[in-house]
Amino acid sequence: MNDFRSPAFDLLSSVTSQKEGLETESIELTELQHLCERSNVGREIFDLIVDLYPICRSITGDGIRQTLSVMTQFIPLQQHEVPSGTPVLDWTVPKEWNIRDAYVANARGERVIDFQRNCLHVVGYSAPVNGRFHLNELKKHLFTIPEHPDWIPFRYSYYDRNWGFCLAHRDLEKLEDGEYEVLIDSSLEDGLLTYGEYYLPGSSTDELLISAHIDHPAMCNDNLSGVAVATLLAQYLSRVQNRRLSYRFIFIPTTIGSITWLSRNEATLDRIKYGFTLTCIGDNGGFTWKETRRGGTEIDRAVKCALRESKEEYELWGFTPFGFDERQFCSPGFNLPVGSLFRTGPYRYPQNHTSADDLTLMSPEKLAGSVALIARIVTILEGNASYFNTSPKGEPQLGKRGIYRKIGGPVIQQNLLHLFWVLNYSDGEHSLLDIAEMSQFAFSDLRKAANILLEQGLLVPSTQILD
Amino acid sequence: MNDFRSPAFDLLSSVTSQKEGLETESIELTELQHLCERSNVGREIFDLIVDLYPICRSITGDGIRQTLSVMTQFIPLQQHEVPSGTPVLDWTVPKEWNIRDAYVANARGERVIDFQRNCLHVVGYSAPVNGRFHLNELKKHLFTIPEHPDWIPFRYSYYDRNWGFCLAHRDLEKLEDGEYEVLIDSSLEDGLLTYGEYYLPGSSTDELLISAHIDHPAMCNDNLSGVAVATLLAQYLSRVQNRRLSYRFIFIPTTIGSITWLSRNEATLDRIKYGFTLTCIGDNGGFTWKETRRGGTEIDRAVKCALRESKEEYELWGFTPFGFDERQFCSPGFNLPVGSLFRTGPYRYPQNHTSADDLTLMSPEKLAGSVALIARIVTILEGNASYFNTSPKGEPQLGKRGIYRKIGGPVIQQNLLHLFWVLNYSDGEHSLLDIAEMSQFAFSDLRKAANILLEQGLLVPSTQILD
Amino acid sequence: MNDFRSPAFDLLSSVTSQKEGLETESIELTELQHLCERSNVGREIFDLIVDLYPICRSITGDGIRQTLSVMTQFIPLQQHEVPSGTPVLDWTVPKEWNIRDAYVANARGERVIDFQRNCLHVVGYSAPVNGRFHLNELKKHLFTIPEHPDWIPFRYSYYDRNWGFCLAHRDLEKLEDGEYEVLIDSSLEDGLLTYGEYYLPGSSTDELLISAHIDHPAMCNDNLSGVAVATLLAQYLSRVQNRRLSYRFIFIPTTIGSITWLSRNEATLDRIKYGFTLTCIGDNGGFTWKETRRGGTEIDRAVKCALRESKEEYELWGFTPFGFDERQFCSPGFNLPVGSLFRTGPYRYPQNHTSADDLTLMSPEKLAGSVALIARIVTILEGNASYFNTSPKGEPQLGKRGIYRKIGGPVIQQNLLHLFWVLNYSDGEHSLLDIAEMSQFAFSDLRKAANILLEQGLLVPSTQILD
Repeated sequence: MNDFRSPAFDLLSSVTSQKEGLETESIELTELQHLCERSNVGREIFDLIVDLYPICRSITGDGIRQTLSVMTQFIPLQQHEVPSGTPVLDWTVPKEWNIRDAYVANARGERVIDFQRNCLHVVGYSAPVNGRFHLNELKKHLFTIPEHPDWIPFRYSYYDRNWGFCLAHRDLEKLEDGEYEVLIDSSLEDGLLTYGEYYLPGSSTDELLISAHIDHPAMCNDNLSGVAVATLLAQYLSRVQNRRLSYRFIFIPTTIGSITWLSRNEATLDRIKYGFTLTCIGDNGGFTWKETRRGGTEIDRAVKCALRESKEEYELWGFTPFGFDERQFCSPGFNLPVGSLFRTGPYRYPQNHTSADDLTLMSPEKLAGSVALIARIVTILEGNASYFNTSPKGEPQLGKRGIYRKIGGPVIQQNLLHLFWVLNYSDGEHSLLDIAEMSQFAFSDLRKAANILLEQGLLVPSTQILD
Repeated sequence: MNDFRSPAFDLLSSVTSQKEGLETESIELTELQHLCERSNVGREIFDLIVDLYPICRSITGDGIRQTLSVMTQFIPLQQHEVPSGTPVLDWTVPKEWNIRDAYVANARGERVIDFQRNCLHVVGYSAPVNGRFHLNELKKHLFTIPEHPDWIPFRYSYYDRNWGFCLAHRDLEKLEDGEYEVLIDSSLEDGLLTYGEYYLPGSSTDELLISAHIDHPAMCNDNLSGVAVATLLAQYLSRVQNRRLSYRFIFIPTTIGSITWLSRNEATLDRIKYGFTLTCIGDNGGFTWKETRRGGTEIDRAVKCALRESKEEYELWGFTPFGFDERQFCSPGFNLPVGSLFRTGPYRYPQNHTSADDLTLMSPEKLAGSVALIARIVTILEGNASYFNTSPKGEPQLGKRGIYRKIGGPVIQQNLLHLFWVLNYSDGEHSLLDIAEMSQFAFSDLRKAANILLEQGLLVPSTQILD
Repeated sequence: MNDFRSPAFDLLSSVTSQKEGLETESIELTELQHLCERSNVGREIFDLIVDLYPICRSITGDGIRQTLSVMTQFIPLQQHEVPSGTPVLDWTVPKEWNIRDAYVANARGERVIDFQRNCLHVVGYSAPVNGRFHLNELKKHLFTIPEHPDWIPFRYSYYDRNWGFCLAHRDLEKLEDGEYEVLIDSSLEDGLLTYGEYYLPGSSTDELLISAHIDHPAMCNDNLSGVAVATLLAQYLSRVQNRRLSYRFIFIPTTIGSITWLSRNEATLDRIKYGFTLTCIGDNGGFTWKETRRGGTEIDRAVKCALRESKEEYELWGFTPFGFDERQFCSPGFNLPVGSLFRTGPYRYPQNHTSADDLTLMSPEKLAGSVALIARIVTILEGNASYFNTSPKGEPQLGKRGIYRKIGGPVIQQNLLHLFWVLNYSDGEHSLLDIAEMSQFAFSDLRKAANILLEQGLLVPSTQILD
């Protein structure tokens, strides 16, 4: 149990630049959210997205390794590699895919589709090809979006050997009849599946899991936004002193990555008390919380409380067994208390899974708001506890303890109400989060009231386990 | 447990005319609903109503016997008869009532009220009368509806010896002062109470009970509609091969009939897992489901699911301890999971219990829609089950089993979602009906998904009893 | 268990004037509400408020004693006195405060603030003062309400020795610079805390607690309205014969009074099955019920039922741990089923805790309506019970018992529906109050139906304890 009675609700303001190195000053938990709101964290996240954008990623291969390597400038990520062919739950780690070049060239030798211009041009996991195809034959391997003729779609064929190119529909229409030279200089061989992990221990082994999928190629909201927000959050969190909770960040390829990670960590999954997947978190939309499969768990409630207090627009979705890696975390055999946080959700914006999901969708201000919201969630989870009022019969006399106004009158003092709410519901059955929900007061105000009452000996921690 | 893995979701279309005889081809369960929608069942039901309309019915007597005899052309009904004086629960089977003629004639010998024109003219269970009455005295035995001066009301006095005539208020006003000759050539003697029953066994002894009251004289919606819809439904159901459930249809006089039937079948009532009374089901209104007393039972939920999928307008009512025979089925000592299905409910249309509840209210199209809705309900009840996902940790890899799209892209396949929902919630605690409610997908789509997964060995039946 | 089968639902109408003496005729419980609606009780309550208005009350002292003494003309109140310094829960009974005179006089000897004109002019519990103060110094002890410049605020300093005057802001602005003579001829010495209590025994020891705070000086809605309504209600209730419940009325100073009372009665608090605090109950607003901390208890439900039936406007509030003495009754160590009844709630009308909370806010009609509502609540609590239907299988045949219409027809008899509801839900698990909530019929109609069924032996009392 963290000692919440620290007098310091003032903020330390001496924050040094983050990029200089990992040795920076530690911060108070209560400072985290303000730091995220007021620092240049939005710009830092945006810059990281810019750095990662050109790398050609897939569910395996050097793109992932390069990406993790850039992130290591911010946090000491652990890189895990699992050999192709390894059985993971119902699946098998696939072959590793790497690609050096790919193009379709016309009769004049002009590259009409060129991987060098945009890695989305190649269907992910395309097998090597080197040959000549007539346009009719080639078209069976070409993918476009007729409704959005300027966008290149994102397509892949991870588990079925195939090859193909994606291109703007407008460019497809320009292709002249005739023969084309097709090259895909890729390799699809036994190798390794790579993912990154960063564990920040706290005084308790209770873990918050934050998972961001890292395999998507040149697209920003889905999901460099999630990767970069999680990276900067992790960095800031690493500087918080006296963390009660432990934090686990995982950066994994979609589906096979979470399956692999779950397979390798099954023995310690019971430490995950809360978690969420983080995707599509940098656009201009309001927030969306997709509930855990269990629903109504502490993370669901903490997020709702944080969203309510954030004064930003938000939507709440019930759990559905599709989306991203929550499908795996919330499969019935694991059923972890893991939800999903986004702004505009996947499949809800037309640019999703296309080349139009680019830097123009990213807003440094919204990225900062996202990390600030998560800091608020973290502050609630860290500060939530349940107490016993040591003077439960009638109200304790606050006046004799110096925490009551002197001359009574018609105006109600708000902070007195915080004290009354915490005293009345500190019966071992209600947590501060319960009280925040009932009273609609800010969690942080109730946390402060609880700290004052702890100082006065009017509260003692409940040994009852929070649900 | 029925084997749902039958590949046949195609419909058999060779249906022979129903009136030719009871020997017709068998049909698939999944065909039942389509058959009800597309065949001429609405016309068949309407024609049966036309045939039954003129018969003078009451809670006992030859009218019931004639009615059951007409129905036997469709289904091999069993006719039960219980002697007057038999104690049944808190009641006693009354004397049997029969009537041959009745009239009121004026001084000129003209029949101003004539049973031969409409059997509603006589108060049900009127004792024999043969005498002369002055209009003032006679009026004590005349019943009209002043607000609807052209309609004849339906009145009865089953348990209190009395007599009377019902007539249009306009006709009452025409009666001249003076003496009238009154004849009621009825008999009220020890005899039998008659009801019909039809039992269709399935592979399980779990029963769906459908009860329609058969005692009302010349009125259509209440309740020849219920009688005729149940009759045709029973006929169609008898042709379904591999029924899992057993079906029990009872055609009974209101109140005393259900009380008699309950009294005689108390030992086996626990087989009734679901049921409903069927009345007022042929008019032009939307559907109404009145919940079982328990509320939220499987029949309540199956009906709601069917109504939602039917795309027709509907209302849901909570249970109330009045109405028709649900009062008996849902009395606290039985508390059976029996609801009530109607279109416009009793007491909700002004013609109810009057001569205006006639053939003009009946719509072959709506009658067909009613039987189709019940077929949909039956399909849900037959198909509902709960399973265990045999690969519950993470998603099973559908691709290697050939049930996944080949090239991933931005469009979600609906049938993939059905598979994901069924897999995720097949944890032994959720039935397909639960999943339909959560996902809002059609029950039949989820049933198909479950069949595919059963074929692949990805599901096994849960031994857990559905609630 | 009271015998509800009394045939008398007729009202006794011979009511003698209440002021003549305590020896008046007894009344039936069912008469109570009608008596409250039709008698001159509103005027009686208003007159009592007029009598009590000028008395200078505080949390201790002679003002409380005088107030209780006036009330003793109506009910034989027991007066309790507890010495200063007595420990009560976390508190200590304070010194007794009395005041004879107080003023601020200007250089010309004119009393510019004069306690004799309005006792609100002195801050409650002001220590004695006799001296001269320059206006600048004096102003530190003066309190006004700038937004309401004609109103004198109500201020107090019970637990922090201090002194001060309250005045209209307009009068403050008129004060000329210079020296003022200040006199507060008060005493603040070891003495007694006084409160009144009135216990009306019934056949059961189950208690309804009604608590009104009595310490507020010259203000009407808060809380002479509560004091006077409770007094007259108690008087009327004392005349009810065959009370099942016991009633406890307490008239206490705010906070320290309820804490003292709770401290002295801890051993018998489990008898309190329902209760409410009564304040701000004489103004022109609709009713407000603030729930008990437990929520959904029998008193909460009885009040909601009474409010619904009253056809008056009302609001329902959830429990909040501030307000008046419900803070103490509902502290987590007691958690009594005590709610709060008001019209316009405290802090909801601007005159609250000012001199403007005067007789002009009081309405004899609304005061009568308040006592009538409480009488309705009492009738529900007295009459609520749960039964077993002795003929639970099917409906019992009401006709053979003479409680059914003779000739059946299309119109539903309302009182038949009452019988059906009571019969169907008398399964030992539903009380009459449950049935009233489900059916939305008036509680009194269901109580009458239950009485008829008890007479017929169709109900027997459930031994099951009501929740």
